[in-house]
Amino acid sequence: MLDRLAVVGTGLIGTSVGLAAKRAGTGSVVAFDPDERSLAVAVARGAADGAAETLEEAVGGASLVVVAAPVSQLPALVPTVLAAGEATVTDVGSTKGAVSAAAAGNGRFVGGHPMCGSESRGPEHATADLFEGATWFLTPVAETDPASLRRVHGFVSALGATPVAIEPETHDRVVALTSHLPHALANLLVNQAGANRVEGHDPLAAAGGSLREMTRVAGANPRIWVDIFLENAGVLGESLADHRRRVEQLEQALRARDAGFLARWIGEASSNRRRLLAQAFPDPGALQQLHVHVPDRPGVLAGITQALGAARINIEDFELQHVSTDRGGNLTLLVTGEDAARRAADLLEEQGYGVVVEPVLE
Amino acid sequence: MLDRLAVVGTGLIGTSVGLAAKRAGTGSVVAFDPDERSLAVAVARGAADGAAETLEEAVGGASLVVVAAPVSQLPALVPTVLAAGEATVTDVGSTKGAVSAAAAGNGRFVGGHPMCGSESRGPEHATADLFEGATWFLTPVAETDPASLRRVHGFVSALGATPVAIEPETHDRVVALTSHLPHALANLLVNQAGANRVEGHDPLAAAGGSLREMTRVAGANPRIWVDIFLENAGVLGESLADHRRRVEQLEQALRARDAGFLARWIGEASSNRRRLLAQAFPDPGALQQLHVHVPDRPGVLAGITQALGAARINIEDFELQHVSTDRGGNLTLLVTGEDAARRAADLLEEQGYGVVVEPVLE
Repeated sequence: MLDRLAVVGTGLIGTSVGLAAKRAGTGSVVAFDPDERSLAVAVARGAADGAAETLEEAVGGASLVVVAAPVSQLPALVPTVLAAGEATVTDVGSTKGAVSAAAAGNGRFVGGHPMCGSESRGPEHATADLFEGATWFLTPVAETDPASLRRVHGFVSALGATPVAIEPETHDRVVALTSHLPHALANLLVNQAGANRVEGHDPLAAAGGSLREMTRVAGANPRIWVDIFLENAGVLGESLADHRRRVEQLEQALRARDAGFLARWIGEASSNRRRLLAQAFPDPGALQQLHVHVPDRPGVLAGITQALGAARINIEDFELQHVSTDRGGNLTLLVTGEDAARRAADLLEEQGYGVVVEPVLE
Repeated sequence: MLDRLAVVGTGLIGTSVGLAAKRAGTGSVVAFDPDERSLAVAVARGAADGAAETLEEAVGGASLVVVAAPVSQLPALVPTVLAAGEATVTDVGSTKGAVSAAAAGNGRFVGGHPMCGSESRGPEHATADLFEGATWFLTPVAETDPASLRRVHGFVSALGATPVAIEPETHDRVVALTSHLPHALANLLVNQAGANRVEGHDPLAAAGGSLREMTRVAGANPRIWVDIFLENAGVLGESLADHRRRVEQLEQALRARDAGFLARWIGEASSNRRRLLAQAFPDPGALQQLHVHVPDRPGVLAGITQALGAARINIEDFELQHVSTDRGGNLTLLVTGEDAARRAADLLEEQGYGVVVEPVLE
């Protein structure tokens, strides 16, 4: 493990990096943040052995510096950090083009982006577990020093993440499609449903599970997301234009009442969904979902998970969506194989629940 | 409760209606389906006391007929059913404009649409619990006989659903926004991500939680969804055109690097999201979410839900998203109030988990 790590920026991510690095056996961790309160909390929580008074003090003598500042500050900050010492430098920003260009091929810089999905801010929310099981993109370029890449690769692996190397511009295109476009569509969708009161009926009041689920990320922390949208504005704009063309094509098919187009389009979505699930599940075709309506009271989930756990049925995914206090909630759980699904359904029916079982993929 | 119910169409919904009606104390239920196998299964499962050989035999003498045929057949079938007897007639189709027009103001027809969210087909998957806690839209018009409306209203309440009256055209606009548009966007999104291999990287392989969640309904049963999209093609087309204009507006803001627009747009999404959640939760502002990384093995969920249940902490929503067998999964759970969130986090940390707590709404 590293002898000396510096963390610049002690928000959720920086503080979690410090906590995870200490747990993984890093010799010493020093932290710096212009926000003294945040820095004091990070040190008090054990994410660093000490606080530096200046950026230069933190960086001097470090073998690795993790820059965990807001994404809009990275293009200015990373070159400063590179100039302040001889350390390998990495960052955790969610776009990589601008910061990589700013680092101008400095061999000691390796861009990084942990996909840990949390929107929280502040060192209070940090946890050493934040990166467990997460993909951590690394964006080396031709000029990157192999020893620096190995150091960052080893470091993020030690934090529990899976490093995936990718070019900076490719990274920005991939996250535009997999993260920024979905976020934008969630905002667009909830705003469209919220803006259209139909003859006195509020569509938001009639929202079923699909609208609620598709807008879960809507309205996420504007202090983070305005920056992300602007940093990736060019690539995201192209994705949105492509999306708009696809919407237009669907409108044409609806006008032409083209059932063949719709069937092919849904079929294509089904195989793409299968490819997506294949990342998480060895055999997505074997996945079965069970739908159960449950009352709203403590202990209900414990009863269900205990019964299935005792029967050694592994619950792959599990989703409870609350309807209301009076009307309870809808539970969907995924298991692998028809046999496990049948045994799970039997156990739930013994507890008095009605169960609908269906394959996840047709 | 009713003395005599007829169910026309013994797929998932029709058979579930029969099962729920029998459980609620309906005197006799007779079923008809041109598919003899499906009809036999429904009767064998106890959804009906007997099978009719013809539509006329089923309908004759019934006080209420529930027509649970595919949505594209309803405009032809409902007038036939109305002509075959003196019963009140309702349907369960997911669009209401065409069937209401076909019923041509017959006072005995009350359009209906249970929002039970299942994609399954076939009487094998039916359950008496299917409608528990669900919204069941009813679409009476000016000509509707009040006694028929009362009969259908009482019937769907007895099945455990919450009846909500709405005009047929308004219904179709509302479901276009809350169900058909989200479904279409899920298909569009997964197809766009799946079509774009970026420099050898498959974006679907890098998909984070938001893409997976936003495309859960993608590729859903084409035999159902081609019909739904075509039946509501006009209204859905308008919603898609409105969506496209909103996308264009966002593209313009990105080109202009208009941070003010983006912040207002995200803020609007946040308040719309709050309104949406207010349907399910009395105080959405008090909701706190806990993020926990868990290993992939049976019993893990039981350990967590038991500990929280024993401490009388009510889990409002609960979502486990599997990452992979090696990398485990990400669990998000919602509780009400900071105190409950802190107690839940303490209990989970005692079990060795790292927990990130954050408010659901900013």
